[in-house]
Parts: sequence; structure tokens; C-alpha cells
Amino acid sequence: MRDAYHEQLDSVFDDLTGICQSVQTAVRLATEALLSGDATIAEQVISNDADIDLARERVEDKAFGLLSLQQPVARDLRVVVAALRMVSELERMGDLSVHVAKIARLRTPFVAVPEEIRPTVAKMAEVAEDMVSRVSQIIVKRDVGAAIELGRDDEVMDQLRRTSFAQLLSDDWAHGVEAAVDIALLGRYYERIADHAVSVANRVVFVVTGENPRTVGV
Amino acid sequence: MRDAYHEQLDSVFDDLTGICQSVQTAVRLATEALLSGDATIAEQVISNDADIDLARERVEDKAFGLLSLQQPVARDLRVVVAALRMVSELERMGDLSVHVAKIARLRTPFVAVPEEIRPTVAKMAEVAEDMVSRVSQIIVKRDVGAAIELGRDDEVMDQLRRTSFAQLLSDDWAHGVEAAVDIALLGRYYERIADHAVSVANRVVFVVTGENPRTVGV
Repeated sequence: MRDAYHEQLDSVFDDLTGICQSVQTAVRLATEALLSGDATIAEQVISNDADIDLARERVEDKAFGLLSLQQPVARDLRVVVAALRMVSELERMGDLSVHVAKIARLRTPFVAVPEEIRPTVAKMAEVAEDMVSRVSQIIVKRDVGAAIELGRDDEVMDQLRRTSFAQLLSDDWAHGVEAAVDIALLGRYYERIADHAVSVANRVVFVVTGENPRTVGV
Repeated sequence: MRDAYHEQLDSVFDDLTGICQSVQTAVRLATEALLSGDATIAEQVISNDADIDLARERVEDKAFGLLSLQQPVARDLRVVVAALRMVSELERMGDLSVHVAKIARLRTPFVAVPEEIRPTVAKMAEVAEDMVSRVSQIIVKRDVGAAIELGRDDEVMDQLRRTSFAQLLSDDWAHGVEAAVDIALLGRYYERIADHAVSVANRVVFVVTGENPRTVGV
């Protein structure tokens, strides 16, 4: 039977999974608001972010409580330290979704993304959301293999970002400075969501193996 | 007389101060490269970043060692947990300086920043560097008052960012999409450096008071 201490330790990872799912919803809804120009959905992402911030605080308090009162060592200590870092990254991913939603809101009733670059932006958003979804599973299953795999897929996002720059800097770009700036910033936000997803996955590798991914083959 | 444990604990803050000074140099040189179009200085910022990354690893190892072997409590625990977070933020500030340097490098022998918007960008860079410099002092002196003050000054950066957007979206903007995208991303990088500076300062408040700044009047 698990004692109260280990139950609390395990519950930290459940909390992280829950936050990761909220982040996935935020990324999905922010993208929906962006591609449809729907201000109501954008508002929803912006106001829901307070829940992610609160959930972060709860995880931080719990982690700090475990460190103070239980003084975990070895793998248990790695869980708590990793949780503190993961929850910061997850919160940032929520903030980045809010940035996407704010660009959507700023341009309504129009759509910030011109038709011709829509496939590239939609693909970036899809890759970002898929990475967040995979991170949830990586946290649940403590799946080191999947975590290392995720790190490798980061290249897809870099390639999409290069494609978007090529499009908006080409002579054919007919949508002016404002749309170009929006796309450049949106690309940055989705890229950062992907970066944080990789970073959260790397923390899972650290928890399970005691090593950072750079030393276990990433 | 201080024992070895407390000496090691204090040395974590010395390490953080050193990293913060390296970050300040990175911000200063990246800006110099940007405003002069000097590729050599840009390269220097990019290659020096490896030292910041290594210094971060050393602080993480030290903090983890302290948690494992000494099981600190109360204020000592806050120092170690805060150090883990501060060092992540400082490393990101280094990465953001590299992003600035890479835009500088991409445009050499030209200068990425058109003359008419140079004062705004130079001011953003100055505010960012000043905030990093003040954070070094806040860490050294554990200065809660100065930390809270720093959080309030973040508004200056927001205002500069709005000014830059107004300039590059005005009808007078004659420098095309590429320069506008550069300026928008540069603004984002300097703004994030400022955000991280505030966040590092907030960690000092947490170490000293045991409270996060939101509850002590920020």
C-alpha cells in the first residue's frame, strides 16, 4: 500500500497531466479563434489562462511542501525538482496560446492569417498541438522513448517557420506589413510552444533515468 | 565561522550573479552588433552563449547536490529552489541575446534597424540592459525594495513596444516587410529579456520574504 507521502508525490504528475491537457485545449482554441476570426473563442482562451496560472501555483506549493516536510532523495527528489520546472514551462505554453488568441482578437472580425499562408500557419498550429498532446501521454506513461522522439520532431517546426518567412518575404506577398508582422509573431509563438513541449518531455527523461537527454542519445 | 554547507549555499548566489553579468554583456554586445551591423561582435555573442549554458548546468548540479545531500529547509530551501528557477530564466535571457545577434548577423553588412526607428530600438535595448544590470545588484544585495521597483518599470518596455508597432505600421514606413518583421521580433526579444529580469527579481523577493511578490505589494 502506498503511504500518504508517495500518494502526494504521484499526484504531482497527475496535476501536471491535467495542466498539460488544459494547455492543449488552449492551443487548439487559440488556433480556432485565429483561423476563424472568432472573438468569443479568443476571449475564452484569454480568460481560461487564469486557471492554468492557479494550477501552477498549486503544484508549486505542493512541490515546495514535499521538499520542506518530506525531504525526498534520489528519484523522488528528481520528481519534485522536475515538476517545478515542468509546471513553469506549461504555464508559459498557456501564455503563448494567449498571445495567439490576442492576435486573433485584435484582427476580428477579419482573420489575421491571409488565405495563401493559411496552410503553413495551420500546419504549425497542428504540429504544436500534437506535440502538447504527446507530452501529456509522455507524462502519464513516463515514456522515455517517446520523449526522445519528440525532441527529434522539433525540426518539423523549424522547417515550417522557414517556409513562412519565405512566403512573407517573397515578392508575391500582397498583404502588407501588418499581416506579415502578425505571421512572424505567430510563428514565434507556435515555435516556442513546441520548444517548451520538448523541454517538458526532457524533464520526464530526467525523472526516469536521472540523466538529461543530451547524455542519453538526443 | 561558516560551515562548508552554508558556504556552498552562499556560493550559488555568487554563481547567479556571475551568470547575470555574462547575460548583461550578451545583451550589450548583441545590441552593439545590431546597431552597427558588426558580424564579428554578433558571432562573439553567439559563441559565448555556450559558457552561459555550462554555468547554468553547474548551478543546477550544485543545487541538486544541496537538495540531495543537505536536505535544506526554510530559507535555505527557498534559496536552492529559487536558484534553480533563476538560472533557467538567466539562460533564456542569454538565448534571447543570441536571437538579437542572429538578426544582426543575418543583415550584415547592412544594419537591420532603419535609421528612423533606431531611437526606439536603442531605447528598448537600453531598458533591457539596465534591467539586467539592476538584477545583478538585486541578487548581490538581496534587495527586496529594488526588486519590487523593477517589476513596476516593466511598463516602460511595454510602451516602447507599442511605439515601435505604431512606427512600423504607419503609412510613412518605407522599409518594407523584412525590416518590419525584424523590428517586431527584436521588440519581442527585448521585451522577453525584461520580463525574465522581473521574474528573476521576484525570485529574490521570494528568497528573502518567503512570499511571492504578488502578496507583498507588487
